[in-house]
Amino acid sequence: MKLLLCGQMEAGEWQVWRDALAAAMPEAQWLDRPAALAAADEVQAAVVANPPPGSLQGLPRLRLVQSLWAGVDRLLADPTLPPDVPVARMVDPAMTAAMAETALWATLALHRGFFAYARRQARGEWRVHAQRRADEIGVLVLGQGEMGRAAAARIAQLGYRVQGWRRDGSPLAPLLGQAQVLINLLPLTPATRGLLDAKLFAALPPGAGVVNLGRGAHVVDADLLAALNAGAIGQAVLDVFHQEPLPADHAYWRHPRVTLLPHAAALTDPRSAAAVAVANLRALRDGGALAHLVQRPRGY
Amino acid sequence: MKLLLCGQMEAGEWQVWRDALAAAMPEAQWLDRPAALAAADEVQAAVVANPPPGSLQGLPRLRLVQSLWAGVDRLLADPTLPPDVPVARMVDPAMTAAMAETALWATLALHRGFFAYARRQARGEWRVHAQRRADEIGVLVLGQGEMGRAAAARIAQLGYRVQGWRRDGSPLAPLLGQAQVLINLLPLTPATRGLLDAKLFAALPPGAGVVNLGRGAHVVDADLLAALNAGAIGQAVLDVFHQEPLPADHAYWRHPRVTLLPHAAALTDPRSAAAVAVANLRALRDGGALAHLVQRPRGY
Repeated sequence: MKLLLCGQMEAGEWQVWRDALAAAMPEAQWLDRPAALAAADEVQAAVVANPPPGSLQGLPRLRLVQSLWAGVDRLLADPTLPPDVPVARMVDPAMTAAMAETALWATLALHRGFFAYARRQARGEWRVHAQRRADEIGVLVLGQGEMGRAAAARIAQLGYRVQGWRRDGSPLAPLLGQAQVLINLLPLTPATRGLLDAKLFAALPPGAGVVNLGRGAHVVDADLLAALNAGAIGQAVLDVFHQEPLPADHAYWRHPRVTLLPHAAALTDPRSAAAVAVANLRALRDGGALAHLVQRPRGY
Repeated sequence: MKLLLCGQMEAGEWQVWRDALAAAMPEAQWLDRPAALAAADEVQAAVVANPPPGSLQGLPRLRLVQSLWAGVDRLLADPTLPPDVPVARMVDPAMTAAMAETALWATLALHRGFFAYARRQARGEWRVHAQRRADEIGVLVLGQGEMGRAAAARIAQLGYRVQGWRRDGSPLAPLLGQAQVLINLLPLTPATRGLLDAKLFAALPPGAGVVNLGRGAHVVDADLLAALNAGAIGQAVLDVFHQEPLPADHAYWRHPRVTLLPHAAALTDPRSAAAVAVANLRALRDGGALAHLVQRPRGY
């Protein structure tokens, strides 16, 4: 089986992925784009990680695009992506666990005021604030895919009042007033872009915490900064940004109430993800059912 | 039933406690020290929170000292404490839960490098570090009382490799080499004072995280600072100190690898703790069994 492997990452990181994939499926031939084009009629699938636009053209027998990343918004935005080839997202159990860890860490830190204590340490201030029980804190998780459900379950385990929301379910507005902590784990689609805006922030309880683990474009940055500066939002934990790396002059870097992660809330782990990708490739080869297929009109 | 209520806290905090205790046991007379001395022959129990030394003298019918705090090392160090009166610690379920939350937050932050990301944010650096799975991280919890057990259980739930240690159990040394995260929840006794010293730090894996939620005197500060400065310890999360508030000129305040909490890892919650104290007072009155009694020779 001949496979295209392409995308954009550092050389060392690519080597780790190539080794993991080759070990998981030694019977396959893993080709870079020039080699794949040279054998274009035989390449049946592509395994990709943020491939440059156009990377998937010129492969007439392509029957599957398997992403190594969970988010496929950039991949689907490529107008040259062959329209009828199935696209599969990565659902890596290690990444799902890591995302739930980050969501739980942020929830604990917001609930217990550990970000506020860090600010006090920086100015040499010894002062205790009041302590609430977990069951007095409402946590709203936007997105009920693998990661949203895993995060919600972990957080609920600690006793928080957790609600999950999905775009095709009940309306969002009635849930916002109880969300001391709002966690975004939605996929980025035309319907969710800019959802975290001034109107949404105004509906949260005063001083709420906002945790964006989805995509930068879910947030209207100017609205979030205004809400932070007005105290309407008490703290934001942001892992994703409109432009990454976040430009050096962006107000988020130095904002005292922004905790910034460099798109590191959850990394795909080659050790487990390679096995997930290869299971799909073998299903393709053997006529089995493909997992984690994207519904392209929906966008995820 | 006449009861002495005394200790040292802010007036507003005392009012909350007085209200909670009076609501939980309206049939009792809650007396301050002058009033209790005026009715010395009728005072059967004292409910205390860091009482000034000597506060419990002059009450010949005293049959129970119920602490509102979990740690009784300062109370037991008062040489005027009547030697034959039972002393009960506070075991407040809300405080136990809060301590487990703090231990879990610190574990997640150390495991995932969130303290390192905060340092990078401060210097405007966008850089991702490697991600390990929870089951690749060893967590050692010193102390297996209510709080140590609760913390260990919460942390184990996330998949970490958790070991618990108690002083009268197996030896400590063989456990240290696997402890990427060390969490101290021991009671302070002559046997545990200074346990976290250079020898212990040297036995941990390089770059380990140390979380002290016990007492300041468990740690030899000079040894911890030396281990931090040498990189042998990667980060310390410290809630308790030899002197509190921590003096303004202490090196911990400004150390880039120290996260400092103002003895706020877990507060006793008057709403639940008042009921716990009153249950013991009613048991005393009615001849029932007293809970959470301190073994005074052991020190906790």
